[in-house]
Amino acid sequence: MSSSSAAPAAKPPIRDALVAAAFRLFLERGYEQTTVDDIVALAGVGRRSFFRYFPSKEDVVFPDHERCLADMTAFLAAGGAEHEPVRRVCDAARLVLRMYAENPAFSVQRYRLTRQVPGLRAYELSVVWRYERALAEYLRARFAGRPDGTLRADVIAAAVVAAHNNALRSWLRSEGKGDPGAAVDHALGYVQKTYGRPAQAAPAPARAASAAAGAPAGQADDVVVLVSRRDAPLWRVVQELETALGRG
Amino acid sequence: MSSSSAAPAAKPPIRDALVAAAFRLFLERGYEQTTVDDIVALAGVGRRSFFRYFPSKEDVVFPDHERCLADMTAFLAAGGAEHEPVRRVCDAARLVLRMYAENPAFSVQRYRLTRQVPGLRAYELSVVWRYERALAEYLRARFAGRPDGTLRADVIAAAVVAAHNNALRSWLRSEGKGDPGAAVDHALGYVQKTYGRPAQAAPAPARAASAAAGAPAGQADDVVVLVSRRDAPLWRVVQELETALGRG
Repeated sequence: MSSSSAAPAAKPPIRDALVAAAFRLFLERGYEQTTVDDIVALAGVGRRSFFRYFPSKEDVVFPDHERCLADMTAFLAAGGAEHEPVRRVCDAARLVLRMYAENPAFSVQRYRLTRQVPGLRAYELSVVWRYERALAEYLRARFAGRPDGTLRADVIAAAVVAAHNNALRSWLRSEGKGDPGAAVDHALGYVQKTYGRPAQAAPAPARAASAAAGAPAGQADDVVVLVSRRDAPLWRVVQELETALGRG
Repeated sequence: MSSSSAAPAAKPPIRDALVAAAFRLFLERGYEQTTVDDIVALAGVGRRSFFRYFPSKEDVVFPDHERCLADMTAFLAAGGAEHEPVRRVCDAARLVLRMYAENPAFSVQRYRLTRQVPGLRAYELSVVWRYERALAEYLRARFAGRPDGTLRADVIAAAVVAAHNNALRSWLRSEGKGDPGAAVDHALGYVQKTYGRPAQAAPAPARAASAAAGAPAGQADDVVVLVSRRDAPLWRVVQELETALGRG
């Protein structure tokens, strides 16, 4: 899954050494008690090397978010009109999960650290905000010209991020046990069910009938939801109901 | 609307003077170029007075969020089982709008400032996060024991905050012109329509019958929504339907 495990030489070894040294010291002494000088001493490089890779001590805690944000932006930009927009942003969110899942032990350590250090929590919030804006900007473009386009874009982007993070945090709290992919798929499925167009929408006859009387708005395995105008003739509604229940 | 305009003496005048002095200097010189010493000199008080009211220079930019967060928490805690949960969190979000709308000129100035100063943007994100967590914690308690209770709570809280902020920011970008209340009502209405139970939920007899066969899950003015188990006897479903349509 990780390109680094397949081809370790592809990542600059100094960068990896700095991240490893930083986390070792953060866990041993605490984040606040560790200086950039401590990190470079343990990694065996100079201060300038540190700042070549990371603008600040905070950035070494989140070494892969910039790459992931760039990947997400590129992924969204590569999408065409044939991609259902809500599905596309859900798939974009899965890139973030993949980054966390590439290295469970590191992700769990970092999660603990961000819970303890308010400055890192604030940093993380700003990163999450940038992911959310990337998703929202994509949806705003896709919904341009539609009523409430920016409202829907912002709400759906927030829902996607919240669902993703709900599943991601459960996994992190469980010490990285179990399959985070399945949990995130389930959470994003909830958002897609709410806002997305189904891959194969309701069959044409049911849609056609919806204008006349009642129409099955959705079907789970053993539940039928019927939406009807109050003034629809009862026989039409029952007809729809029979069709929906598969007894027509 | 504002308690301060109705009874100015209720707020400590020193606190107000510090906020006024700070904003005058922020706008004249810029936020970074203004020190706490500059602020206290202009307000005619000592440094200790400043820190009695505000832990840091950042906090003077957002003087009312702590009160608003406390109001929101109290409002949510005062809610009972009779309050539809999604409506309740939408009403809680309106408390934030009210705070902004109390003083449009100040809110617009602050909005411009937070756009320019990354540190203030980060501060604002952490405040927004605390509002979102307050709403999510309330919903988690209300949805406790339901399938996907925490997922739904987190997603709905995020959707409420995103909708509220979409409308609030449009109003702030328009220099505080127009009625922010109507815009926020519209935006929150979108979320309530998506996730909430309609204001007048299913009548008691229908709820009682829901275990047996089908039950009207909600009624708008001229639409009936019927949720039914697929294997329910058709006659029971039609009976429910007749009741829901008021023709039983």
